[in-house]
Amino acid sequence: MACFDTISFLTDYGTTDEFVGVVHSVIRQVAPDVRVIDISHHVPAHDVRAGGLTLARSAQYLAPGVVLAVVDPGVATSRRAVAIEVGDGASVLVGPDNGLLAPAVSMVGGATRAVELTNLDYQLPAPGPTFAGRDIFGPAAAHLCNGVDLLELGAEVDVNGLMPGMIPITRVEDGAVVAEVLWTDGFGNLQLNVDPVEIEDFGPRVELRFDGKVRTGVRHTTYADVPTGEIGLVVDSYGLVSIAANRTSAADELRIGTGDEVVLAAIGDEPARAGTITPVTLQEKP
Amino acid sequence: MACFDTISFLTDYGTTDEFVGVVHSVIRQVAPDVRVIDISHHVPAHDVRAGGLTLARSAQYLAPGVVLAVVDPGVATSRRAVAIEVGDGASVLVGPDNGLLAPAVSMVGGATRAVELTNLDYQLPAPGPTFAGRDIFGPAAAHLCNGVDLLELGAEVDVNGLMPGMIPITRVEDGAVVAEVLWTDGFGNLQLNVDPVEIEDFGPRVELRFDGKVRTGVRHTTYADVPTGEIGLVVDSYGLVSIAANRTSAADELRIGTGDEVVLAAIGDEPARAGTITPVTLQEKP
Amino acid sequence: MACFDTISFLTDYGTTDEFVGVVHSVIRQVAPDVRVIDISHHVPAHDVRAGGLTLARSAQYLAPGVVLAVVDPGVATSRRAVAIEVGDGASVLVGPDNGLLAPAVSMVGGATRAVELTNLDYQLPAPGPTFAGRDIFGPAAAHLCNGVDLLELGAEVDVNGLMPGMIPITRVEDGAVVAEVLWTDGFGNLQLNVDPVEIEDFGPRVELRFDGKVRTGVRHTTYADVPTGEIGLVVDSYGLVSIAANRTSAADELRIGTGDEVVLAAIGDEPARAGTITPVTLQEKP
Repeated sequence: MACFDTISFLTDYGTTDEFVGVVHSVIRQVAPDVRVIDISHHVPAHDVRAGGLTLARSAQYLAPGVVLAVVDPGVATSRRAVAIEVGDGASVLVGPDNGLLAPAVSMVGGATRAVELTNLDYQLPAPGPTFAGRDIFGPAAAHLCNGVDLLELGAEVDVNGLMPGMIPITRVEDGAVVAEVLWTDGFGNLQLNVDPVEIEDFGPRVELRFDGKVRTGVRHTTYADVPTGEIGLVVDSYGLVSIAANRTSAADELRIGTGDEVVLAAIGDEPARAGTITPVTLQEKP
Repeated sequence: MACFDTISFLTDYGTTDEFVGVVHSVIRQVAPDVRVIDISHHVPAHDVRAGGLTLARSAQYLAPGVVLAVVDPGVATSRRAVAIEVGDGASVLVGPDNGLLAPAVSMVGGATRAVELTNLDYQLPAPGPTFAGRDIFGPAAAHLCNGVDLLELGAEVDVNGLMPGMIPITRVEDGAVVAEVLWTDGFGNLQLNVDPVEIEDFGPRVELRFDGKVRTGVRHTTYADVPTGEIGLVVDSYGLVSIAANRTSAADELRIGTGDEVVLAAIGDEPARAGTITPVTLQEKP
Repeated sequence: MACFDTISFLTDYGTTDEFVGVVHSVIRQVAPDVRVIDISHHVPAHDVRAGGLTLARSAQYLAPGVVLAVVDPGVATSRRAVAIEVGDGASVLVGPDNGLLAPAVSMVGGATRAVELTNLDYQLPAPGPTFAGRDIFGPAAAHLCNGVDLLELGAEVDVNGLMPGMIPITRVEDGAVVAEVLWTDGFGNLQLNVDPVEIEDFGPRVELRFDGKVRTGVRHTTYADVPTGEIGLVVDSYGLVSIAANRTSAADELRIGTGDEVVLAAIGDEPARAGTITPVTLQEKP
């Protein structure tokens, strides 16, 4: 019988409404001694990919136990509510089966078992069908902490049938790395889906192409090393390449954000541009 | 001697300033083992009605114990600071006597006893008169958890003399239900003060009149069932009728919000409009 | 061997990203029984002074234990990571040595010992150099709670060599008090660096000069006592003079904010203006 003492909790509920507090209250009554740690409740509304990436970034640092994650634009439709066991029971992730949990599940080694949350004995009766965090997911997380067996919560489902996550991967074109902004953090740093080894051959200065513009990114070890006015490339605290400016927002500076494409290339390495004689004019958006 | 182990905490303090953390710290020192669950601290500043409705929506889900609520535009004036017992001691609500607590008190069966928080032995000495959450309400909540008797906190007051809450009720005019938006949630759904039975006779398509416009709302079971571009009427997770759009904000779409009037009627049921021959032109705001 | 059971936690991380939750998770795994109380995570990005003032306002109300504070524009540069003991071990403040901790340290009597956090045994291995809260400061706070000796965390440093904080003090010019807005709270009240005794001689009505304008501030005991349309001067809950408007934002009303200068003087006391015959015209910004 597994017993967990921590629930890590992520949603797109925001904290203006009472949703988060109500789920905490429901958990408190089912499993009084469990600690609930809020990871974030400010995932952009309905943004399953952003929520999945946030969980994946957090995954290796979370306390073993239950991960309760709800970003659920299809609430109360045919999308399944699931609990996914990882590490042969080391932790369980609870949430909608819409790809939200998939990146984190991958990060920690993949699913070992999963169930659909169909057993009404472990749910709250709902006055309406739309608050699954309160009525289905929260209670499931709390009951798991109390030692209720995973298979008690509902019918087992094939882990290979779970909705996969969609994490963009880079591709190489003409020697350049075509990347994407995975995440714009609160400081305006732009995390790319780029491992430092992918740009090792480009040297300390890297050409950045985005939104019709070309800029030079300079590799630095820390954000504070980036001189004012320069665009830095820093390996961030997750081990990925990020675009950064010193004490200001690179996102505001470059006017790009999550989901935008960025091409990284060796300086002067682009055949087409090598033959031109006019200098590149940076077209700033109005 | 009642002992409580949970304080449910709601304010309009926001979380940018240290107010919420300081109240948590004060409680921690008076009653170290109590769990404090934050319901919301983003009630609009001084909006007693919004705070009261948030508490009322939460009430039935809160852990038994103390509810600490502070939305208090009249802080340090003649408005009383009170503790209101409900359920013959099952829980106690602590806050200003300005109507904030009243809807939640009603939801759980009404007040059984109440005191004004006048006993300085259970308050912090204040360098200024304006932070009642830290100096008066927070300590009162914590001492109640420690088993201090309600009547120790101050003089008993008549529960019938407590400030009532003001929850708008619908009225019927010419067969139409004149309603009001009680709450715009973070997803832009518009909760009305309308029980589903009130619009049962209108059928699946209901005329909505607001702000000089007329739209058709279509009843659906879930938010995700609402087709793109359509205005849905969904019974929300609190059992009330709400206006919703699929994966977008109905509030932004219709340009209405909390406190605005919405009239619900049977389609084609309005006598005045039946005689007109020109179609209704929707006047969009610029 | 000191053992602490509470960590008071302040950052400029915001709560949109997972940073705060990840630090909570790291602490949970090192010191499972410690309570972490969030003071604020919405200090303006990189604003060391604002963070330091927030801590100083909170200091006397915090539970004894560890204060974990991270506002750290120079992360991973030569600025030191430190732990500062106060009250001969009553509490320890952990964070960057950039002046952030200094005002709070002063408030509680000054530092008794300090170390630089150099011992890697009490840090997490980092995939990148930039998340010191997760990898250095959070673990240090948790290990201190577990009873690890301060001197185990790194080399002792001279407490007189710690970076001082910069709190502006008032000056008197021609009998007027030249002050500064220390803090604009979420309600729009403007806290000045002015002790009530400094303006005692000015009487109940005080001339306020700021941004080329002159207004009269009227002293009141509570915010709610300020009549609509009037500018009030209220001793706030920290014992400092603040500019306030009743149920509205004084900051919006006067169009000033944190860091702006405000001169307080006796009405009609300014020599230059005494000789003029034209009335002061208030120039409103467009």
